[in-house]
Amino acid sequence: MFGDISGMMGKLQEAQQKVEETKKRLDTVLIDETIAGGNVKVTVTANREVKAITIDESLLEDKEELEDYLILALNKALKRAGEINEQELAIAAKSGMPNIPGMDMFK
Amino acid sequence: MFGDISGMMGKLQEAQQKVEETKKRLDTVLIDETIAGGNVKVTVTANREVKAITIDESLLEDKEELEDYLILALNKALKRAGEINEQELAIAAKSGMPNIPGMDMFK
Repeated sequence: MFGDISGMMGKLQEAQQKVEETKKRLDTVLIDETIAGGNVKVTVTANREVKAITIDESLLEDKEELEDYLILALNKALKRAGEINEQELAIAAKSGMPNIPGMDMFK
Repeated sequence: MFGDISGMMGKLQEAQQKVEETKKRLDTVLIDETIAGGNVKVTVTANREVKAITIDESLLEDKEELEDYLILALNKALKRAGEINEQELAIAAKSGMPNIPGMDMFK
């Protein structure tokens, strides 16, 4: 099932490289989330880095409401970013793993 | 090196369970980041969920400055959260992996 050890090592190193390349590419994948009728907009990368936050002037009058909207928008965007991140890294990592039925470490 | 297949499968399933348990525990690990002399404070979990954002009234007068501070504080907190998350999940995942010298998929 694993063929020779050096072949397996080669595949694992290949997969490791793919994971690194994928991580770099995910920096360029942007996820936007706009809520509160467009009054709060956030942009994050698929590596979960916040790139932009845009707040409408009207929200500056209500601090608590602004804080709540920011949390909501950020968590929505970060959740989507996390899903993309995990899916893409799982694909990259799996490329080096033997395919053992029923055993999906990267589910 | 892998002993019998069923032993290995058992170890992998154990590791998968550890990963799930770790993910749940990381929801309770909170990371605070305070910047701008205490005017912006954010709290995130080690699963990168934003739990709290506290903005000082004084910052509501300068929208751009507020937006910049929020991005800075959030990225600092999310970076630390990501480091804790990856370290802890790597430990959990490694518990099921054969120890192949030089081959660290979860670096």
